[in-house]
Amino acid sequence: MSQKHKVVVIGSGNWGSTIGKILAENTREHSELFEENVSMWVFDEDVDVPDDKTLRDQLGDKPVKLTHAINTVHQNLKYLPGIKLPVNLIANPDLQDTVKGASILVFNLPHQFISKTLDQIDHQHLPYARGISCIKGVDVADGTVTLYSEMIMEKLGIYCGSLSGANIAPEVAAENLCETTIGYDGPPMDYKQPDGSPQDNLIKVDEQRQSKSKPSHVKLHPVPQTYPHVDSGLLKKLFSRPYFNVNVVRDVSGVALGGALKNIIALAAGFVTGKGWGENTKAAVIRIGVLEMVRFGRIWFPQSVDERTFTEESAGIADLVTSASAGRNFRSACHAVEKGVSVDEIEKTELGGQKLQGTSTTRAVYEFLEKQGQREQFPLFVFVYDILEGRTTIDSLPEVLDKESKIKAY
Amino acid sequence: MSQKHKVVVIGSGNWGSTIGKILAENTREHSELFEENVSMWVFDEDVDVPDDKTLRDQLGDKPVKLTHAINTVHQNLKYLPGIKLPVNLIANPDLQDTVKGASILVFNLPHQFISKTLDQIDHQHLPYARGISCIKGVDVADGTVTLYSEMIMEKLGIYCGSLSGANIAPEVAAENLCETTIGYDGPPMDYKQPDGSPQDNLIKVDEQRQSKSKPSHVKLHPVPQTYPHVDSGLLKKLFSRPYFNVNVVRDVSGVALGGALKNIIALAAGFVTGKGWGENTKAAVIRIGVLEMVRFGRIWFPQSVDERTFTEESAGIADLVTSASAGRNFRSACHAVEKGVSVDEIEKTELGGQKLQGTSTTRAVYEFLEKQGQREQFPLFVFVYDILEGRTTIDSLPEVLDKESKIKAY
Repeated sequence: MSQKHKVVVIGSGNWGSTIGKILAENTREHSELFEENVSMWVFDEDVDVPDDKTLRDQLGDKPVKLTHAINTVHQNLKYLPGIKLPVNLIANPDLQDTVKGASILVFNLPHQFISKTLDQIDHQHLPYARGISCIKGVDVADGTVTLYSEMIMEKLGIYCGSLSGANIAPEVAAENLCETTIGYDGPPMDYKQPDGSPQDNLIKVDEQRQSKSKPSHVKLHPVPQTYPHVDSGLLKKLFSRPYFNVNVVRDVSGVALGGALKNIIALAAGFVTGKGWGENTKAAVIRIGVLEMVRFGRIWFPQSVDERTFTEESAGIADLVTSASAGRNFRSACHAVEKGVSVDEIEKTELGGQKLQGTSTTRAVYEFLEKQGQREQFPLFVFVYDILEGRTTIDSLPEVLDKESKIKAY
Repeated sequence: MSQKHKVVVIGSGNWGSTIGKILAENTREHSELFEENVSMWVFDEDVDVPDDKTLRDQLGDKPVKLTHAINTVHQNLKYLPGIKLPVNLIANPDLQDTVKGASILVFNLPHQFISKTLDQIDHQHLPYARGISCIKGVDVADGTVTLYSEMIMEKLGIYCGSLSGANIAPEVAAENLCETTIGYDGPPMDYKQPDGSPQDNLIKVDEQRQSKSKPSHVKLHPVPQTYPHVDSGLLKKLFSRPYFNVNVVRDVSGVALGGALKNIIALAAGFVTGKGWGENTKAAVIRIGVLEMVRFGRIWFPQSVDERTFTEESAGIADLVTSASAGRNFRSACHAVEKGVSVDEIEKTELGGQKLQGTSTTRAVYEFLEKQGQREQFPLFVFVYDILEGRTTIDSLPEVLDKESKIKAY
């Protein structure tokens, strides 16, 4: 194998910068497989330089560009302050320049920017590149649900897996021990078409493995044999750190869905805690949340989702437990009930108008359930939506438990 | 049906009194099925009367017998103070008198007293009675593991199910909403022997459904047809309250095992939190704990355990999440790491020498794993034991994650 993989990160928030740190640590450690430098696309902006002698000696005391700061003091001063980034993680404000020549693209940006960003890439990436999406959430439009890994696949024409887990970014950045799950089921290098015919230039993505509500029709370019195989072993070398334990599974959809749906349940857990109901009640909400995640996967991703992703993987139960105990969705929902106001109100007063992932996911999933005529199969998801809309309050939770116990084992 | 079920509770700690409260509320509500009075066996002792006018008007200001206090002011002043008990929950200090004529026995006492208590019953119960064990823990002796439901079955010769869930007793007593799981798979009233022969007087317990390490050879008396059927519907009527949502499953062993093994994992979660590692790490420990619970069930209860009990029921994941966030095992382990002392030391200094459920279960399970030659299949359980014994510290957790990820999917 004569070529090394060029790895890039699209996005540089706290989670994007943390993943960039991990990737750059590993490309240096496995320089036989990867080019050492990892480019990170940064949406550039002016940042203040903190009142710190070392930083001001290098950057001055006037506002500087975020990319300049990252490449000079190797810190993301705005989104991940205090964490030393590897010197081989290179901030780049030019999206197309970042992706040029990259064979592995890691996507890690807020879901509301992903569609536009993919358009702006304008096919400047290698046609045979492979992607990993760390983006939480699902895209709902016209009664269909699309995972961001699928959207990337369709818009860029590259195979894309997903990464998700119990990974509160600042804790990972501080190198506190945790786990994550990568879903990756890309075609192997020695891929043959299902009819056994010699490999032609394009590989059909197996439609059975896509979302039932919107199968995609992507054809993939094979990765040239001159590159190291992109398989679970290579992905482990790229993402695992002593403090970041990676498990690779084939269930891309389950990994992506877990990261999206858990935020609905985190809101429910916050409502319960705000009500003062304690750990037993929260545990009931988490348990029912897992059941509805599994059910969601079974109905709309019957061929691709492995329910063990929800019940046994970091991207499932572990991420859910973490999100239902900490994180913005949980806390905001908790405050809303404590103060007797809506979550919308909390977004305005406490988050400066920033929207929570959980509220947009809940509304998107509700719209989808309604169009698909499946609301009654998801009493908890619908309940969270109804609370957000002011149609009910957390006091009606007993009815949800009741409805859930009447839904037959799936 | 001419006879009503007589229901009794054996044990009167905070959880026993709480379950007694629930049962007495329901026997009154369903007086067509149950005798209204519920007898509760209380290990009698002198208790001080709190400085409260209403209580002292009725009880005086000298110490009184606990049974007298319960039957007079309808509060368990020692173990569940401040909670009003139903007047039809009757404390009885005489064990044999309590069980006499009872057709449903609910066991809810600390596991270290169960064996002796069963001996003291001296077969004064009805031979065809049915039992429900709310006792957490497993009994390990000579390389075999016995669930308390099995021990009750063997010692009393009655069929016994199990009840467990995310049920921190004071929260249930305060009527905060929660769920529980009952495992019950008793023979139906119209039971026929497997060879199709007319029912003889004794029903063989299906050995396949018992522990692999120690199958039991109990024969059961059929419940007379004059009683209402003891089935999942009847158990729901007996245990469900608007604040206590009951799910009945057939997997008695899984329900009992969940309640026992979760305490090992609660200790691990406490160690992690004491170390200051945060939610991501705790979620990893919980996730691995579920995997080891499932594996334990698969190896030693292959016919009886349904792994969904661990991943989907209140007795599994929900109870585990609760125990890993609150409760004495979690808190004591957390304090031990924070103070740099052993858990044994915490038991001495903070618990007045009282032993935690988690430490005894961890040691019992370790002894069992060792005798069965299966230690390497349970890296987390063994790790908790090693920490308790001072052989390692929580700092070695990364090795546990590593070992776990190398154990092939079960």
